[in-house]
Amino acid sequence: MVKVNENYLKLKAGYLFPEISKRVNNYTQANSSSKVIKLGIGDVTEPLPKACVKAMGEALNEMGTNNGFKGYGPEQGYGWLREKISVNDFISRGCQISSEEIFVSDGSKCDSSNILDILGSDNLIAVTDPVYPVYVDTNVMTGRTGETLQNGTYQGLVYLAINEENKFQPEIPKKKVDIVYLCFPNNPTGATITKQELKKWVDYAIENKSLILFDAAYEAFIQDKNIPHSIYEIEGAKNCAIEFRSFSKNAGFTGVRCAYTVIPKNLSGQNSKGDKIDLWSLWNRRQCTKFNGVSYIVQRGAEAVYSSQGKKEVNSLIDFYMKNAEIMQNKLRSAGFKVYGGDNAPYVWIKVPDRMTSWDFFDYLLEKADVVGTPGSGFGLAGEGYFRLSAFNSRMNVNNAMERIINI
Amino acid sequence: MVKVNENYLKLKAGYLFPEISKRVNNYTQANSSSKVIKLGIGDVTEPLPKACVKAMGEALNEMGTNNGFKGYGPEQGYGWLREKISVNDFISRGCQISSEEIFVSDGSKCDSSNILDILGSDNLIAVTDPVYPVYVDTNVMTGRTGETLQNGTYQGLVYLAINEENKFQPEIPKKKVDIVYLCFPNNPTGATITKQELKKWVDYAIENKSLILFDAAYEAFIQDKNIPHSIYEIEGAKNCAIEFRSFSKNAGFTGVRCAYTVIPKNLSGQNSKGDKIDLWSLWNRRQCTKFNGVSYIVQRGAEAVYSSQGKKEVNSLIDFYMKNAEIMQNKLRSAGFKVYGGDNAPYVWIKVPDRMTSWDFFDYLLEKADVVGTPGSGFGLAGEGYFRLSAFNSRMNVNNAMERIINI
Repeated sequence: MVKVNENYLKLKAGYLFPEISKRVNNYTQANSSSKVIKLGIGDVTEPLPKACVKAMGEALNEMGTNNGFKGYGPEQGYGWLREKISVNDFISRGCQISSEEIFVSDGSKCDSSNILDILGSDNLIAVTDPVYPVYVDTNVMTGRTGETLQNGTYQGLVYLAINEENKFQPEIPKKKVDIVYLCFPNNPTGATITKQELKKWVDYAIENKSLILFDAAYEAFIQDKNIPHSIYEIEGAKNCAIEFRSFSKNAGFTGVRCAYTVIPKNLSGQNSKGDKIDLWSLWNRRQCTKFNGVSYIVQRGAEAVYSSQGKKEVNSLIDFYMKNAEIMQNKLRSAGFKVYGGDNAPYVWIKVPDRMTSWDFFDYLLEKADVVGTPGSGFGLAGEGYFRLSAFNSRMNVNNAMERIINI
Repeated sequence: MVKVNENYLKLKAGYLFPEISKRVNNYTQANSSSKVIKLGIGDVTEPLPKACVKAMGEALNEMGTNNGFKGYGPEQGYGWLREKISVNDFISRGCQISSEEIFVSDGSKCDSSNILDILGSDNLIAVTDPVYPVYVDTNVMTGRTGETLQNGTYQGLVYLAINEENKFQPEIPKKKVDIVYLCFPNNPTGATITKQELKKWVDYAIENKSLILFDAAYEAFIQDKNIPHSIYEIEGAKNCAIEFRSFSKNAGFTGVRCAYTVIPKNLSGQNSKGDKIDLWSLWNRRQCTKFNGVSYIVQRGAEAVYSSQGKKEVNSLIDFYMKNAEIMQNKLRSAGFKVYGGDNAPYVWIKVPDRMTSWDFFDYLLEKADVVGTPGSGFGLAGEGYFRLSAFNSRMNVNNAMERIINI
């Protein structure tokens, strides 16, 4: 009889966001008159940049003609897009990342999950706590953890707490880990990392021959000039890091779907004999076998992000959401909350009032203010006592949500 | 130190199509004057249906407005698309497949690879030989096989030969297998399966509690009214089969990217204790965790395939490519070749002349006729001695390619 992958049965109930949706649906069905404002999922709300719409419209028209029609594209993404990414996102910052090292995909969620395909199942893995749940859940699904402990953590993973006490900077683990996930600007806390701090991680990884999986999906929100946008701004990172990037949050592509992953050509792991095995080739083989590339139309849209008009529009979008984040910080502080993040990231991270859990505070905000956020504990044990609000919404909704919270 | 997934090292050199590209590039570089006609990869060549272009254009414009903008969509696909699929592709043929059982994705290559995520690693797996290489390679990559044997097959897989002798109908395996991949209309042979023959597989799967992974990516090319388009036309299939479908070959979406997978709600596997575990829930959890849905714009394009205008245009596309297949069959037979397939599938499957291998014939056609096809041996041991030509090309290219072959 067909056997299932039993690792799935170790997963805790529902992925965080579906769980939130369920609670919100139950609430709105019971309270049909209330107008809930959602600052939960990190989903953008503003229209696509006109430059992207125009480029996609042109690509679409091409696809309707004999001469312009495109079938399967390269699994790695079109050369013209990879070249634009290389020049604009890396070379311009002094990072020697070539277009060949860039793999275009349909999402960072996919990439940061799929990367495990090419890595051994016997690696010791570290994640921050709180953490983007996908990193943990995909490790569980692929049998890289044991069962859940009573506190909700999984056996076999190394958790690196990030909290008020350590200023949301994970400490270098005392024991050697083989793989570590780092996400900066951080989801969910909105914290950033300096070059000096990130250098420590790169040094650690090189010394221990570890791999850093660096998620930079929110780099576009960085305001402070000294904060690195890419891990490759740190010397040596090309020998120890893979980076994930996305068009979801800068250009509003959450419903369009485009992202990319950087795998430097000289990056390697080892097999059980201790031979060096090149990760670029494994990922290339994975993508050629299991993936068929991103829609041509969408790739033309992503390319337009790098046009001068596209850059202007992306900057306006970032400014818009960061102004939201500023309003949220100010209003929440004036209401007496302790607030972190929101300076270089579209998330504010609130300390929940004493004697409340994160989920208590979720229900409290939903019922008293019709505002939806994300309970910190949904991101991990050390997220308990915190709460995430997203700056992705219209100005009116942000203002209204803040007024409602102030007036509870 | 970070360890790699060593199963990748078992893979034979380059995935088939990249290998073909390499040979063709070498040839064209050395013979710059020759105009190669590619009948190799099964990639469509005609423009997108106008109905799809129109719908995608409207969706794109929506995305540029405040009111019409869409962020993350449901990971499973939008309800309106799933509903159209359910009604048009299944209910209309008497198959009780509900919209909830349909998971929209960015490609059948992805789905037929990713499905292994939810299945145990200790299943005995059968594939036909020849076979679409993705089924085999993804099993190798996930450690479900042993090493390659000298003949190029992998230890641990059950190969079911399909050839002239058995009229390209795989025989039911003598030993129990847990999972079997079936693809009809078949890629690469172009063979089909009758309801009576498919019923034997469904009965076998139910008796042995096996799972059939049924790839129906080419169903739109079926001309004969008695050939099933879906495995769910067979009684009992909802208890033993997952079906993969694609918009790539009917509506020409190879560069647009949209497909779907059907997982019936009552379908189950078991865990090691022998408990029944529902596969729909596992796949739903997989998609929610590792995937972020298909582009809204693309889904609107897929929806338009089911409009009356869309259906008309898809029919014309199918007729066009099937006329190509007819021309190819006739011309190749007149040139003395034994030809199979091409009646209900966009592929013709040629018996290679005596004393030539499939790759010999590949080089021969390339050098003598400037025509590219796919060596049967690239699809497996039992494909040796055969050669695939695809009907996906312009009429002019098909006519020219056939003239060149006839005149060698």
